[in-house]
Amino acid sequence: MPARIPGNDEFGMMRAQLERATGTDVRAAVRARKWSRATHGLARGFVQANLAILPERYAFDFLRFAQRNPKPCPIIEVLDPGNPEPAIAASGADIRTDLPGYRVYREGRFTEDRRSIEDIWRKDHVGFLIGCSNSMDELMLEAGISLRHLETEDGRISVYTSTIACQPAGVFHGPMVVSMRPIPASKVTRAVEITSRHPLAHGGPVHIGRPEAIGVPDLSKVEWGKYNPLGVGDVPVFWACGVTPQAIAMACGIPEMITHAAGHMFVTDLRLSSLAS
Amino acid sequence: MPARIPGNDEFGMMRAQLERATGTDVRAAVRARKWSRATHGLARGFVQANLAILPERYAFDFLRFAQRNPKPCPIIEVLDPGNPEPAIAASGADIRTDLPGYRVYREGRFTEDRRSIEDIWRKDHVGFLIGCSNSMDELMLEAGISLRHLETEDGRISVYTSTIACQPAGVFHGPMVVSMRPIPASKVTRAVEITSRHPLAHGGPVHIGRPEAIGVPDLSKVEWGKYNPLGVGDVPVFWACGVTPQAIAMACGIPEMITHAAGHMFVTDLRLSSLAS
Repeated sequence: MPARIPGNDEFGMMRAQLERATGTDVRAAVRARKWSRATHGLARGFVQANLAILPERYAFDFLRFAQRNPKPCPIIEVLDPGNPEPAIAASGADIRTDLPGYRVYREGRFTEDRRSIEDIWRKDHVGFLIGCSNSMDELMLEAGISLRHLETEDGRISVYTSTIACQPAGVFHGPMVVSMRPIPASKVTRAVEITSRHPLAHGGPVHIGRPEAIGVPDLSKVEWGKYNPLGVGDVPVFWACGVTPQAIAMACGIPEMITHAAGHMFVTDLRLSSLAS
Repeated sequence: MPARIPGNDEFGMMRAQLERATGTDVRAAVRARKWSRATHGLARGFVQANLAILPERYAFDFLRFAQRNPKPCPIIEVLDPGNPEPAIAASGADIRTDLPGYRVYREGRFTEDRRSIEDIWRKDHVGFLIGCSNSMDELMLEAGISLRHLETEDGRISVYTSTIACQPAGVFHGPMVVSMRPIPASKVTRAVEITSRHPLAHGGPVHIGRPEAIGVPDLSKVEWGKYNPLGVGDVPVFWACGVTPQAIAMACGIPEMITHAAGHMFVTDLRLSSLAS
């Protein structure tokens, strides 16, 4: 994370506090409506997770899909049907209230943004916590690998739909979504080493060096996020992106899916170091 | 594997042939009823797998159980409901005919041994291929770590029910079953390093050195297999055992489960080296 100088305003002070806080602290602030923004950089050292909630009748297909595609869909925890508490990753937490933002999709289309999902939670809802690239970025920064997208004001990364096909499972099938980070050539090996040891944060890159080989002929044409230009001597390195399962569930027209809002992750009690293989 | 001198008999010659064969070759020999014995040592370098088949209504619980307990239940592939072909691990194979032995359990009790399960296969059957310790043994032998149980005539390992609780999921709950290998003290670190890099072959040990700490006060009292005494300078090292999911499914009284017969594994087309993390 680039150094941030907390402002004198309430937001800046809260942010500075939550950056050094635990996962439990961040979730408590979110639940008490004291924090409703993105979670990037909060609770340093703790694993953050993407959220997907599906009706139980799609859950076994989805979990098989994740098992067959561990790079885009690294499963941190699958909650029991109807149970909103991730007992392993964050005992006492509640996925209906502890994320700062939710999105609801019906029949494959976005329908609404929400601040909580308590009133639409059902007994047949199954929550999936999925590894997230915030964790990967933190690992690389700690290893001294600078990341261009974090040097920009909005911190958005470059995301593309690749031509790499995911292994299908049941109703779920489609291409892998990838994020691109420009990495200085001298640091590419180290970036592979660090990320490969963390399969729950998407693991090692899915492609290095030739974007056109995976269906991205023009890096400036991003599908999500924004284009982060290559610096002199940078190599484009692609990792599987956590947007993949959501993009695929939507394209396959699942009747209902609830997810985190972009950047508004679930902060767990798991230490990043505990994810190393 | 200890060196074997093939005999002049048909069995010895077939065995010598299949040791150097591919996974596809071994499965073809099994399907053609040319091989009906244990698979230990066959198709060197290829991953072997435990098999569990459950009715679809238990499959999501079982896969959640496996996801929460990756050391005893490392999932290599989950087949689609009703489909007997593991498209990823062994394209063209058929789990109903390609293992040299099956066992059927009903209401938590063993009911019959079978040579094929074609005639009892149903559309709601879901097959799970689960990592197996044959693969782990091969990795350690290649690393120059001698394994006592493979120096004995029957090659059976020492297996115990530990007091380590598995993370429950749905109907599945219970203790972890562990296998013990006596490892020379000077090789314990290397054994951890090698096995930890192969999470799909049960990964690193779950305990090293003090059997009583995991509920095994007397190593000579095995629950399955046979006791392999510690040599002078050996340390008892325990790994999670692939018997765990079967023991738990039986204890939980699942109406029906079909598994491989002990030692009669499914030989995949995956290379052992491809499992390294």
